[in-house]
Amino acid sequence: MSSALSPSRPAPRAHADERASRLLEHSRSLVRPALAEAIARLHPWVGEMAAYSLGWCEPGGAPVAAPAGGKGLRQALAVLGAEAAGAPRSAGVTAAVAVELVHTFSLLHDDIMDGDPTRRGRPTAWKAYGTGPAVLAGDALFALAVETLAATPGTGAPGTDIPSAVRHLSTALNDLVRGQADDLLFESRPWTGPEAVRPDEYRAMAEHKTGALLGCATALGAVLAGAPRETVAALDRAGRHLGLAFQVVDDLLGIWGDPAVTGKPVHADLLRGKKTFPVLAALGTPAGRPLARLLDSAGSLGAADARRAAALIEDAGGRGAATAEARRHIAAVEACLDGLPRTVRTGRTVRTTDDLRALLAHLVHREM
Amino acid sequence: MSSALSPSRPAPRAHADERASRLLEHSRSLVRPALAEAIARLHPWVGEMAAYSLGWCEPGGAPVAAPAGGKGLRQALAVLGAEAAGAPRSAGVTAAVAVELVHTFSLLHDDIMDGDPTRRGRPTAWKAYGTGPAVLAGDALFALAVETLAATPGTGAPGTDIPSAVRHLSTALNDLVRGQADDLLFESRPWTGPEAVRPDEYRAMAEHKTGALLGCATALGAVLAGAPRETVAALDRAGRHLGLAFQVVDDLLGIWGDPAVTGKPVHADLLRGKKTFPVLAALGTPAGRPLARLLDSAGSLGAADARRAAALIEDAGGRGAATAEARRHIAAVEACLDGLPRTVRTGRTVRTTDDLRALLAHLVHREM
Repeated sequence: MSSALSPSRPAPRAHADERASRLLEHSRSLVRPALAEAIARLHPWVGEMAAYSLGWCEPGGAPVAAPAGGKGLRQALAVLGAEAAGAPRSAGVTAAVAVELVHTFSLLHDDIMDGDPTRRGRPTAWKAYGTGPAVLAGDALFALAVETLAATPGTGAPGTDIPSAVRHLSTALNDLVRGQADDLLFESRPWTGPEAVRPDEYRAMAEHKTGALLGCATALGAVLAGAPRETVAALDRAGRHLGLAFQVVDDLLGIWGDPAVTGKPVHADLLRGKKTFPVLAALGTPAGRPLARLLDSAGSLGAADARRAAALIEDAGGRGAATAEARRHIAAVEACLDGLPRTVRTGRTVRTTDDLRALLAHLVHREM
Repeated sequence: MSSALSPSRPAPRAHADERASRLLEHSRSLVRPALAEAIARLHPWVGEMAAYSLGWCEPGGAPVAAPAGGKGLRQALAVLGAEAAGAPRSAGVTAAVAVELVHTFSLLHDDIMDGDPTRRGRPTAWKAYGTGPAVLAGDALFALAVETLAATPGTGAPGTDIPSAVRHLSTALNDLVRGQADDLLFESRPWTGPEAVRPDEYRAMAEHKTGALLGCATALGAVLAGAPRETVAALDRAGRHLGLAFQVVDDLLGIWGDPAVTGKPVHADLLRGKKTFPVLAALGTPAGRPLARLLDSAGSLGAADARRAAALIEDAGGRGAATAEARRHIAAVEACLDGLPRTVRTGRTVRTTDDLRALLAHLVHREM
């Protein structure tokens, strides 16, 4: 699958991974000064909680020996999205800062809502600082993201459409909240019957919860670089499909993933009773009846039941359906990128989407 | 004091109160359809929590018999601020919706941080729906406020400066978070010594926590109506001083207010050990030493200690200093409005600030 997404000359996997690592690293180093400058504008106490959440410091503010933050996927998408629209990577930095702040905000508040005590091997912010302060730190990151975008350098320059950028970000924020609301409500819905969660409801939830911010990240650099509406729409759609693919792959790993790799117990999502795509797909078929009986009868599954459920999901085609679903979204990412115009630069036509495609190929490679 | 803020022809108090009530009611009826339309765009579950927080419905969604919402001060300021800048009141509606959404967001999250179980005689949202859902509902209102402003009708029309409006809102949001952070941190600071809270730190906290959104409310309608920079700045300053006056008057009522009027127990803020302006002002004088000894010795005050503390604050001049502080800010509100240009409309010079002044006069009247 992933080779279809690779840049024009297919490269060996190790080489592609190295290229993606370089792209992520380059984006992080490009964005980091502006991100640090934004965090420094916060109230010092709130800024410390933000820096902790970004993996930059310990509680109390001491710098960490080995930074524990994420890979910086969203900031890389913003930077390479600007490049894909024919602008220099630096034109995507403000967008990258805004989406990274929103991403950190959403992790902070989601961890409170989900009651998760750890993230990336460290206590979550609400565990380390208390619920009230973590709510406040999330709010501060949210406000800072909006401020950063509204104060984009070069405001008023031709093509710099700040209202459009703010609309993109606020649409992603609204979608994020909508997806989180549905995800929380899915927990109390039954496995079967007219109130059961349908696969199309799952898709809407996953697109909102995961896809919207990835779409915004991929498109926002291009928006600020003054890209045409069609380019922006294609980048946004690419990010949304990437999010859907991620979510479904995450569901597959949550049932059949290797605990040594995922860091979660075996059958984790089944033990938690999560309404994931493979389960919903299996329940939607006549072959899913034994699974339905098992899930409806058990309050919550024990280890033996979870093992049996995993086998029943596979028998009913849930695993295959989820794999096909992920592949469909990956193909859609590719189609979106294929539709982007080539860019004329210093007299020759270049594919400014190459690096974005390389990064996406790596992500897809790694996940599938 | 208040007569100085009254419109050109001083009116008897009952008449002024009636006029202010009419202005508040007119603003609410002008803004309500757009506010309801915005809330209707939310996820239904989140929208119900938002409507509950606005006092429109019971938990479960049934409409309330007697709406329990606030007076709608901020929306009135936005509408009358647009008018003060020479625009029709309707030009302030989008701004009014945005500030009302932000205000509701901040009450929702503040109640979680402060652990307050009731507001306006009803359970707070986190008590009625749970902490996680209330965090989510606040986030949704925040995102909706930004979206509303970024999608202001007439975008692109001459004078409609959306980036400037979004910057105003995000500055207020950042200030709000900063003020809330300081307010939370003040709780654990000592009464005396080099770590004690100074009156100027209090002023900064109160301006951020209460003044910033009132300033934004007063200015934002004018920003969207395309008012000159000086007019916008004067309206913003007026709202900030109003917020400072409110906060200090609230402090006075929290110590010497009539429980039958305030709805709080007598000496409420002393029993809670709050670092209010009258206490800080008293501690800053040599006459405040007996008060300092009492506060430093007691862990938390009982009823008799609180009565004694109230007398000591008054003896050391804290009550007088707070009253003078409030009056200074009220005079500053007046000076800001006096500086606004008169508007030529249908051939004659009119004072489009009259209604804004009338509303502020009423607020000040009622408080002092």
